Amino acid sequence: MRSARTLRQVQVAVTVQRSLHHQHPPPPARSAGIVGAPFCKGQSRGGVEDGPERIRAAGLQRRLQQLGCAVKDYGNLTFEDMSLDEPMGLLKSVRAVGAANQKLSEAVRAVKEDGHTAVMLGGDHSLAIGSIHGHSAAVGELSVVWVDAHADINTPLTTYTGNIHGQPVSYLLHELRSKVPVLPNFSWLKPCVSAADVVFIGLRDVDPAEHYILKMLGVKTFSMSEVDQLGVARVMEETCDYLSARCFVSLNRGKKPIHLSYDIDAIDPSVAPATGTPVVGGLTYREGVYITEHLCQTGLLSAVDLVEVNPLRGQTEEDVRSTVSTAVDLLLGCFGRVREGNHLPDYRLPDP
Amino acid sequence: MRSARTLRQVQVAVTVQRSLHHQHPPPPARSAGIVGAPFCKGQSRGGVEDGPERIRAAGLQRRLQQLGCAVKDYGNLTFEDMSLDEPMGLLKSVRAVGAANQKLSEAVRAVKEDGHTAVMLGGDHSLAIGSIHGHSAAVGELSVVWVDAHADINTPLTTYTGNIHGQPVSYLLHELRSKVPVLPNFSWLKPCVSAADVVFIGLRDVDPAEHYILKMLGVKTFSMSEVDQLGVARVMEETCDYLSARCFVSLNRGKKPIHLSYDIDAIDPSVAPATGTPVVGGLTYREGVYITEHLCQTGLLSAVDLVEVNPLRGQTEEDVRSTVSTAVDLLLGCFGRVREGNHLPDYRLPDP
Amino acid sequence: MRSARTLRQVQVAVTVQRSLHHQHPPPPARSAGIVGAPFCKGQSRGGVEDGPERIRAAGLQRRLQQLGCAVKDYGNLTFEDMSLDEPMGLLKSVRAVGAANQKLSEAVRAVKEDGHTAVMLGGDHSLAIGSIHGHSAAVGELSVVWVDAHADINTPLTTYTGNIHGQPVSYLLHELRSKVPVLPNFSWLKPCVSAADVVFIGLRDVDPAEHYILKMLGVKTFSMSEVDQLGVARVMEETCDYLSARCFVSLNRGKKPIHLSYDIDAIDPSVAPATGTPVVGGLTYREGVYITEHLCQTGLLSAVDLVEVNPLRGQTEEDVRSTVSTAVDLLLGCFGRVREGNHLPDYRLPDP
Repeated sequence: MRSARTLRQVQVAVTVQRSLHHQHPPPPARSAGIVGAPFCKGQSRGGVEDGPERIRAAGLQRRLQQLGCAVKDYGNLTFEDMSLDEPMGLLKSVRAVGAANQKLSEAVRAVKEDGHTAVMLGGDHSLAIGSIHGHSAAVGELSVVWVDAHADINTPLTTYTGNIHGQPVSYLLHELRSKVPVLPNFSWLKPCVSAADVVFIGLRDVDPAEHYILKMLGVKTFSMSEVDQLGVARVMEETCDYLSARCFVSLNRGKKPIHLSYDIDAIDPSVAPATGTPVVGGLTYREGVYITEHLCQTGLLSAVDLVEVNPLRGQTEEDVRSTVSTAVDLLLGCFGRVREGNHLPDYRLPDP
Repeated sequence: MRSARTLRQVQVAVTVQRSLHHQHPPPPARSAGIVGAPFCKGQSRGGVEDGPERIRAAGLQRRLQQLGCAVKDYGNLTFEDMSLDEPMGLLKSVRAVGAANQKLSEAVRAVKEDGHTAVMLGGDHSLAIGSIHGHSAAVGELSVVWVDAHADINTPLTTYTGNIHGQPVSYLLHELRSKVPVLPNFSWLKPCVSAADVVFIGLRDVDPAEHYILKMLGVKTFSMSEVDQLGVARVMEETCDYLSARCFVSLNRGKKPIHLSYDIDAIDPSVAPATGTPVVGGLTYREGVYITEHLCQTGLLSAVDLVEVNPLRGQTEEDVRSTVSTAVDLLLGCFGRVREGNHLPDYRLPDP
Repeated sequence: MRSARTLRQVQVAVTVQRSLHHQHPPPPARSAGIVGAPFCKGQSRGGVEDGPERIRAAGLQRRLQQLGCAVKDYGNLTFEDMSLDEPMGLLKSVRAVGAANQKLSEAVRAVKEDGHTAVMLGGDHSLAIGSIHGHSAAVGELSVVWVDAHADINTPLTTYTGNIHGQPVSYLLHELRSKVPVLPNFSWLKPCVSAADVVFIGLRDVDPAEHYILKMLGVKTFSMSEVDQLGVARVMEETCDYLSARCFVSLNRGKKPIHLSYDIDAIDPSVAPATGTPVVGGLTYREGVYITEHLCQTGLLSAVDLVEVNPLRGQTEEDVRSTVSTAVDLLLGCFGRVREGNHLPDYRLPDP
């Protein structure tokens, strides 16, 4: 029998081996470029601007690095004060939303030009305008996977609430160009996404006008009814088949990079309650994570938005913790975390 | 660029268009006739008589109308005081249950003869006796889909508890006529349903005698084991295939109208806790809603019971709110609400 | 119409008939031999030694008997005080774990030799060492179904925490014999399980070394990703197919008895929070129960561990109640409880 001391010596050796791994990790397969966008004027509830800070504080960077992912944090964008940004009819904070997204577009473009997978931490979902625009400016045509309880495809003329976080998709689609009026601080924006390149997952609260638009354009949607009917695994298979087939039809030889725009309110409020517009009957934690695991495995995931985490909307600190922790797990899924575990290629099992 | 004023003018025009829609909606595809049955004597826990009031207060009528559904509320039935209704052996409140169901049967029959889809708001599940009887009196042979944690098919001789809410199915089935003694205030009742026309969904707390009866009669059941095994989508497909095949075998050319008898305790207590006999391991909110969406799409749904919401059984007001809100969503699913959204056929997207 | 008195007379007769059933039940198809193992030194959180008492207090024996299952309770094992059990490097309480498992192995062997299905109530999951060893000592080669959030397959040299409850599988596998040093109070233990006879279900928190070992040995695993992808029903079908095929390959004609080692932390913390190392994204109550129902139906289930219920880890009494109640339901599923209900073969429906 080996003595305790011998065992300890082996354990020390193993620990040293681990540290060496830590000092000289293999070149990371993935690198994340994080941009914080503490912006809330696409909707009317304060607090969502604290999303980036809370998600970072939950250890996002450290946990990405533990996966073997390189991380560059570009910090938070700062946005101009627009106190005189008076409503245009129902539309609220048009100039602020326009200016913020222009800035964000440039930031995401820079992250992509640096070679990272972009991670945009919102803030509200109006920020998808700038994030997707900047992504497209850097890499060209995109596939967009929009995971959300809502379709966010109202136009400025169909909105009931006037909140632009319910409209970003209409600003981005080529097909809706004639339906969206020119707005102040939006002259930089040209539609850059085709309706046929978008897939929605998780819909369960869709306005009549939004439903009309989705049907008129033939957009691929998996509402919660379809998730119930098909199961999340088949939804993701069909999503990727659909986007691939679309690429085949187009003149590009290769597949388009995927932009994942993830609204935390896609997840059920029992798991992620700290958000501005929760809707009952959402994705389970497991379904939410499965979506990210599956998209990561395509190798095409090129940018991710994680938006609408609003720490002020939780009833308890546990509500906020659970919401933020889910957001982090979704992001980890985008960068290779799998629930079966993983190990570095050169791992060797220690002998006694 | 259009000015804010121009945008506002378009928005006003859109709003006017909306109002016009509201004033002259297209003829509704569906109409609901609501009967409240504030009755609790089929079981022993006070509070379930407040179900109809709470479900109405959650906006049932308004939300049905928003779906384009016409609604006539027939109000609440009033039930005789039966203070001297002494037990018959174990059986409790026999005369009260008999009298209440006779009245309910007539009310539901009238709703059907007025051409509505009947909505019976309980009250306890003993009320299915009158609701199904009245429905059948108006339209003839029925298919019954019974969604419940319990089979409610004890006879007066097999009951452990003496509560008639655990027995209604045995009173209604032709095949059990000889097993159910004649009871006071039940002489109006003739069995009107064939065992082969009934499907149970959600079972997970079934007494031995009930299990014996279900097997003896070969009743189609999807317990929670089968829901786990097949998934709710296939359960609903098999349910409808089974009921259709049954219609084909019978001499009727057409398919039988469906009576959906929905006990809120089919839904998991984490979602719908405010009920008298909750049982762990129930349907999720999404599965519960999926069942109604699917049955609605058959076009055969002719009457719905929504029973056993008991506001006094919630531990917190949130428990009650969640239970009532689920009940409303189940009813909306029966009348065409789908989670992907919908729009009126003549909707036109506004141009800037 | 029969009078109330006549009805009462029939009910009395039925009740008498029930009592007769109770006095002369048919010979039970199954018998459970329960061993309590109030041991916590495989990990560092006090409280898990109270598991056996709490599970018994929730009516395990009575409820097993109601299923028609014979029960012999062998009581709790008592374990030596090992106050001087100083750590060996990182490894904690080696001597205590070794001695406890030796005693448990003998106890489980005796239960099996008495002809019962063994039920080992933990205590922490290090106890699987003794339970599986004793089971194998009595019946020979085993299949092992390990349901757990964790793989528990670290070796004493790869552990980060030093807790042996994260290592039992490595002690039991033939293939890892050379990777596990000889440890004090473990000289009685010989590896007795082949890696190809083990299936893991529910994994979602696996260390890199564990992942390496699982891949190196080609162990069959269904992490939560696979449960999401395949659904629990197909996971159980594939589990049983895999274990059967394995038996066919071996020289044994018959199928191997199954040892189910169920860590309550496999179940989602929203259902079973009172455990030492909860991990988000676990099995639902329904999935957890389905696993036991399915394994029971194989007729091969020969021993069950139910471990890691820790009453001190619940935040509220309801947390503990829910965890313990789930543990009991899992055990009932192992002994023939099915959610569709059941009845004794000679049941007769009473006539009025």
